[in-house]
Amino acid sequence: MSLVLKLKDLLGPDAVLTEPADVAAYIEDWRGRYKGPALCVVLPASTAQVAAVVQAAVQASVPVLPQGGNTSLCGGAVPAPDGTPPIVISLARMRRIRAIDAANNSMEVEAGCVLAAIQQAAAEQGRLYPVSLGAEGSCQIGGNIATNAGGTGVLRYGNTRDNVLGLEVVLPDGQVWNGLYRLRKNNTGLDLKHLFIGSEGTLGVITAATLKLHPLPTAHAMAWLAVSTPQAALEMLGRFQQRCGATLSAFEMLNDVQLQIVLDHVPGRRAPLPASHPWHVLVELADTGRRELLDQVLQEVLEQGVAEGLVDDAVVAASGAQREAMWQVRHSVSEGNKKAGLGLNTDCAVPVSAVPQFIERATAAAHAVLPDLPIIVVAHLGDGNVHFIPLVPFPQWQALPERDAVAARIKHAIDQVAYELGGTFSAEHGIGQVLTEEMAQFKPAVEIAMMHGIKRMLDPRDLFNPGRLLPSPPSQQ
Amino acid sequence: MSLVLKLKDLLGPDAVLTEPADVAAYIEDWRGRYKGPALCVVLPASTAQVAAVVQAAVQASVPVLPQGGNTSLCGGAVPAPDGTPPIVISLARMRRIRAIDAANNSMEVEAGCVLAAIQQAAAEQGRLYPVSLGAEGSCQIGGNIATNAGGTGVLRYGNTRDNVLGLEVVLPDGQVWNGLYRLRKNNTGLDLKHLFIGSEGTLGVITAATLKLHPLPTAHAMAWLAVSTPQAALEMLGRFQQRCGATLSAFEMLNDVQLQIVLDHVPGRRAPLPASHPWHVLVELADTGRRELLDQVLQEVLEQGVAEGLVDDAVVAASGAQREAMWQVRHSVSEGNKKAGLGLNTDCAVPVSAVPQFIERATAAAHAVLPDLPIIVVAHLGDGNVHFIPLVPFPQWQALPERDAVAARIKHAIDQVAYELGGTFSAEHGIGQVLTEEMAQFKPAVEIAMMHGIKRMLDPRDLFNPGRLLPSPPSQQ
Repeated sequence: MSLVLKLKDLLGPDAVLTEPADVAAYIEDWRGRYKGPALCVVLPASTAQVAAVVQAAVQASVPVLPQGGNTSLCGGAVPAPDGTPPIVISLARMRRIRAIDAANNSMEVEAGCVLAAIQQAAAEQGRLYPVSLGAEGSCQIGGNIATNAGGTGVLRYGNTRDNVLGLEVVLPDGQVWNGLYRLRKNNTGLDLKHLFIGSEGTLGVITAATLKLHPLPTAHAMAWLAVSTPQAALEMLGRFQQRCGATLSAFEMLNDVQLQIVLDHVPGRRAPLPASHPWHVLVELADTGRRELLDQVLQEVLEQGVAEGLVDDAVVAASGAQREAMWQVRHSVSEGNKKAGLGLNTDCAVPVSAVPQFIERATAAAHAVLPDLPIIVVAHLGDGNVHFIPLVPFPQWQALPERDAVAARIKHAIDQVAYELGGTFSAEHGIGQVLTEEMAQFKPAVEIAMMHGIKRMLDPRDLFNPGRLLPSPPSQQ
Repeated sequence: MSLVLKLKDLLGPDAVLTEPADVAAYIEDWRGRYKGPALCVVLPASTAQVAAVVQAAVQASVPVLPQGGNTSLCGGAVPAPDGTPPIVISLARMRRIRAIDAANNSMEVEAGCVLAAIQQAAAEQGRLYPVSLGAEGSCQIGGNIATNAGGTGVLRYGNTRDNVLGLEVVLPDGQVWNGLYRLRKNNTGLDLKHLFIGSEGTLGVITAATLKLHPLPTAHAMAWLAVSTPQAALEMLGRFQQRCGATLSAFEMLNDVQLQIVLDHVPGRRAPLPASHPWHVLVELADTGRRELLDQVLQEVLEQGVAEGLVDDAVVAASGAQREAMWQVRHSVSEGNKKAGLGLNTDCAVPVSAVPQFIERATAAAHAVLPDLPIIVVAHLGDGNVHFIPLVPFPQWQALPERDAVAARIKHAIDQVAYELGGTFSAEHGIGQVLTEEMAQFKPAVEIAMMHGIKRMLDPRDLFNPGRLLPSPPSQQ
């Protein structure tokens, strides 16, 4: 019996897609940059079915590619153009919220749950699931975990990794590991969930998770600040951290280029401040107490900032609608940038203290390759994550000789600056298929060797998302 | 040349101890329960020296036992009575604070730094290193990391694991892994630091770490509550979490037996409330804002609790001295319990929602073995960690036939109750040499097999703290 027939036997015929029209959405990423053939796409409805698929795939020596909402920015969740076409395992049918334990501040969910549905279910119990990102309406929690998704809540609540208590994983040998702990403290041997968080499908298929919930903030305060330099923004961050402690829930920075692109290309977005300024900061406080207290603290810190010459202008959101409008400007950057030109996206993080230096040196590095490129900067300043994006206008991009090589050179030069400042070339987007070379260049050899050792131990035949996350081991280079 | 001579050659003669009087403090735990011979104790002063010791040990096939402040409660940091006597590597001379980056809220420290010194250095920069535990005056950060130490700050700031950004480790093959990242976001492959955090010296020697710092709270409010049942305490926890959000920094519960022991056995401790009550809660709020606001919120929640019949009596600390006195009662439990009898210490955690049921069922399970034993309960209720301690008065203990077996039976019965409620037999103390059997019983076989796989990969000759943390692999059982 062929593998596809066997899979239809195991899952039912409607859970195994092979027609080009049916598989199209699963084998190409949402931006249309990466695409490759698949043997088929399967849609298991239970952990047992995932295990059965894995066992059948391994027996037939066919690679396996777990897929969540297919919102990766690194081509990590679609088949490679070459090599044996894999079975794509979509978790989309496994979207049950298995349990919410409000008193324990935890919930157990299947991997295919959409992030926004999880946020919603938590909110209905007066709880917060704090990971928040642009793709939250379609990305799935399994993918969030497999890539350790970041977003705008990291400053206060950490990455996805920090909000996972336990995991259920189908291992590459087809066994199910039930590690669905829902404990805050559990010092019983190695904490293996951390191996799978961020493993990008290379070590097995995450089928369910226990998530950590938090009290749902009931009061918010927000301001939009104009500052002259990233250094001034950094000093304001320090003042907000000292004064507001854990109520500081977002501290986002963008430059004027970024703001102008949003205003020019995304309908309905309006400038929060009247005049033009080189740098902008969005700051949010959130708490379970009273809104007046937050507004008062926000005002105090802003006034101090103005008095010290750090803040050039500022506006405090006077209503929920104004707050929403400020967030919309921030959340519209991807949409705007896509229309404005070819963005050479990077995803560096550096120590927070080094952000101003990073921006200065990365600008010089990019301009050394292509002078005068406009530079978009949009940063989660609170956690040192800077999306530094040289923008090539479309006509210039079309006319550029060897444009892919030039783009790679510019991105690598930026990553190199981050590296020299103790930073990373991938803060929150992961590695996927596009950054394995950077891994080989920037990570210590001893660290990569350990990763290969773990990969060999769990997936000795290299069938799980092969070629992703890790550079080729020495013997294959 | 003998190995000891070689080590003296490498480190200098005063850094290699062999005289019984010199090694005595390193080969027995502080409670005097576990002891074993060592080939020698070495005191390296640098990472390079640690690597040299490891290389020499591995070449000679002699086991290695890394040791911090020797404050383990599980016999994890002293030699075993049998097997080849190891080289004890004490990190005590590596106590340099290498760097503090206040703007990045991080600091880099060597493994031998005492926890209290780290807290102090952070405070001098207006920052908090939030891990706090009874042994903080002598435990070392390397040991904290190797055991993922918990303590009283977990509710708000997480365990040690959550406060480590990067590690430097001498691996079992003598290579140094420099993973001293100081980033909040870094999605570049597997996050290997989590393998070493909690590995109890079985995977290498942690020589340095980058720690996460937090804003230093400047205002505190604290109350002592009397409640009738653990369920009432749990409901008050929920109210405090909803109302106080992240300012809730401690929520500790103890029963009357525990309080009475502290009052009877520790000089200078006084009862916070006049009358006797079955259950007591210590609640603390901390923030960077104004103290009056905290006191006000605390009062509001308490008044609500009294009105709802959840709180029987309460007192709010009116000064820093009163707050300190309340904490002293809590921090005196180990001292008191040591004098009161033979405590059958356990370290379970269950989902927070299951704590009342755990206490009820564990009491029945202990009394099924030895009826009428007094039971000490002291719990980090906020994170579900209950130290449930049947107390055998010394005369009864001395007279007990087969007392070690009886003690083991009682502890195992308690661990079994935790297991049935989705809990763990070791929340914060780790495994060491005393809980490997419980590991074998309570952890899924597939999980233990993965741990063995990692151990084999990094330490194929089983020379690093052998026999600790993991149960014997199947072939050796």
